[in-house]
Amino acid sequence: TKKFLSEMVEIAEHAKKIARDDPRKVIHSLKVGLALNLVSLLYYIQPLYRNFGENTMWAVMTVVVVFEFTVGATIGKGLNRGLATLVGGALGLGAYHLSSIAGKPGEPILIGILVFLQAGASTFIRFFPRVKARYDYGMLIFTLTFCLVSVSGFRSDDLFELARERLCTILIGASACVIVSIFVRPVWAGEDLHKLVALNLERLGNFLEGFAGEISNSTEAKEFENDVQFRVGVNGILDSKNREDILANLARWEPGHGQFMYRHPWKQYLKIGNLTRQCARRVESLNSYLIPKTQASENNDMIQVAFSNVSSESGKALKELALAIKTMILPSSANPHITNMKIASGNLKSFLKSDFCEDTNLLEIMPVAAIASLLIEIVICVENIADAVNELASLAN
Amino acid sequence: TKKFLSEMVEIAEHAKKIARDDPRKVIHSLKVGLALNLVSLLYYIQPLYRNFGENTMWAVMTVVVVFEFTVGATIGKGLNRGLATLVGGALGLGAYHLSSIAGKPGEPILIGILVFLQAGASTFIRFFPRVKARYDYGMLIFTLTFCLVSVSGFRSDDLFELARERLCTILIGASACVIVSIFVRPVWAGEDLHKLVALNLERLGNFLEGFAGEISNSTEAKEFENDVQFRVGVNGILDSKNREDILANLARWEPGHGQFMYRHPWKQYLKIGNLTRQCARRVESLNSYLIPKTQASENNDMIQVAFSNVSSESGKALKELALAIKTMILPSSANPHITNMKIASGNLKSFLKSDFCEDTNLLEIMPVAAIASLLIEIVICVENIADAVNELASLAN
Repeated sequence: TKKFLSEMVEIAEHAKKIARDDPRKVIHSLKVGLALNLVSLLYYIQPLYRNFGENTMWAVMTVVVVFEFTVGATIGKGLNRGLATLVGGALGLGAYHLSSIAGKPGEPILIGILVFLQAGASTFIRFFPRVKARYDYGMLIFTLTFCLVSVSGFRSDDLFELARERLCTILIGASACVIVSIFVRPVWAGEDLHKLVALNLERLGNFLEGFAGEISNSTEAKEFENDVQFRVGVNGILDSKNREDILANLARWEPGHGQFMYRHPWKQYLKIGNLTRQCARRVESLNSYLIPKTQASENNDMIQVAFSNVSSESGKALKELALAIKTMILPSSANPHITNMKIASGNLKSFLKSDFCEDTNLLEIMPVAAIASLLIEIVICVENIADAVNELASLAN
Repeated sequence: TKKFLSEMVEIAEHAKKIARDDPRKVIHSLKVGLALNLVSLLYYIQPLYRNFGENTMWAVMTVVVVFEFTVGATIGKGLNRGLATLVGGALGLGAYHLSSIAGKPGEPILIGILVFLQAGASTFIRFFPRVKARYDYGMLIFTLTFCLVSVSGFRSDDLFELARERLCTILIGASACVIVSIFVRPVWAGEDLHKLVALNLERLGNFLEGFAGEISNSTEAKEFENDVQFRVGVNGILDSKNREDILANLARWEPGHGQFMYRHPWKQYLKIGNLTRQCARRVESLNSYLIPKTQASENNDMIQVAFSNVSSESGKALKELALAIKTMILPSSANPHITNMKIASGNLKSFLKSDFCEDTNLLEIMPVAAIASLLIEIVICVENIADAVNELASLAN
């Protein structure tokens, strides 16, 4: 029992951590409870219950299944469910009437063939990447409704009334979800995407600035701790592709909100995100090199200054770009840093062109050369990111 | 209408491509149709229908919702749904009886509070990463069943009978899915993971061998085409993390099949996959350098031979490792290549230590130095991968 208790404490602490990291998750849980109680009223209030009878349960089912964390996901699922029920129900009714012409013995066989064709076709269509991204749930509900209506039509008296009642209750459930989701502390997928992309840029900028600092004054004591933090941070950026894709897909369902209008250029965020990851891969490689401290020659000092300039200016540029995204202004404040960065990169190149290696072997120079080439690539990445951010600003006005 | 026709043709071609790329998707669609028709028999055959009446529809719903592409996903969803219905139904019955003690006016209020607490708690628990990975669907169905039973208990006469019939039909539906999924041309998530990891290793090996070939004889004509192929291939490897994680999660639900026993070390595949991606990032950087052809000095020739040796041997080692995974044998055939690779890497290092740069500037040497340092890193990556593959072999016996 002691082990059980300590496990319970652990789970509680884990829960507390999740709640503290994102309090919106707690609020979301309460919102689900609220929406469920709203549709439960259909059961409790006699005049409402009389309308739909047993079919009231479809409202409850819809709320449980449709209510998602973000507004976009909730609207997307609600629309998918509503439309798919409508279309699937209509086609199911059609299939039922078609097969009832065949007469009693042939009826189930004809229904079976139609169900087989419909289920096979919609299941296959769900493999289309574009359908999968946005209408996967709709195709599922389409099959579900078609089968329920056409198959259970075989046993039901008033199929049309049944279909109508289910559609109504599903629409009520979906509306309850969408309304609660939008009006009680909404979580917008678009805003999350916006913040995530800006945050990743900012983190990358911080790493580059940190690298510049490491070059100038080597504080090796804090190095290990920094390194772990760095790995976690960069891996966070590199692994964010999937999350960004999902958020962008959800954001497209959302109406205008806050600073974002409907049809905000969400795809452009994906482009910036991809460029950020390209840049992050270079920064990751950068971190694996230690600058050799062995020879404190004049050359070495000069090249370290050049390194430090390039990385600190590119870091500052990235941070200004992140700020411009966050505050939705034109990224003009990044321009001086980009100019400085280009100048520093040019200096680095011309410095490298000068005869640098004098009686030294390649293995010792290698880290220096590798860092130099990575920094030059990072400069190009940053320029591309700046272009993409400018494009975003002009697309979004 | 002409535009409509051409669009239809386009969609048909898209569908044909999906079917040709993975014919299992077509078979899966047919399997869904088959399973649906199996449970439809519950409607058509009078003695079966008498058992469950209207609740037969839960069998149809379960099939549509539970049947997934892989066996693991189907079993996982089926188990989740079955267990969650059982537990949710039992607790729902308890909640209903508890609140019925309160008497008519208080009853809906008490049920409402219980629903609110239950829905809030389970929604929050779904945010736990470990729950999300394996029991997300179960928590959803748990909430659904609890709410349906406790809330509709307010209007139903024989709640226990209702719950029993629904549980039975859901179990029938889930069993139909699992049986069809396992016995008709099964698609195993574990096998897919196995093949994906081996394929990624093999592709990486091919790239490294190709790089070796490019160094020895520069065939610039085919370069662009190769480059596009290369980009697509490497991005495929880099982006496969999410897919591997999902497959490993699903594989854990699967019983033993083919060469795999139950509790095959699926996690080890994720480790190999992560190491493969680390290596792929280096290979990606490698590709961005062109070896300067300007000076055909003796030094240059020698270093090109060293480069070519390291990359061809590491490529061969990776391909042997991939083959060992595929055929599930001990990766001993990779050992000679790993030895050669280490020797070549050692040669490269000692060669670099010798005075290499003579009256040449750093900017020209930089690509050579960068390639050298990347190749040395790749050698370390390959050694790590070999260790991980050996570990997999010993874990799996």
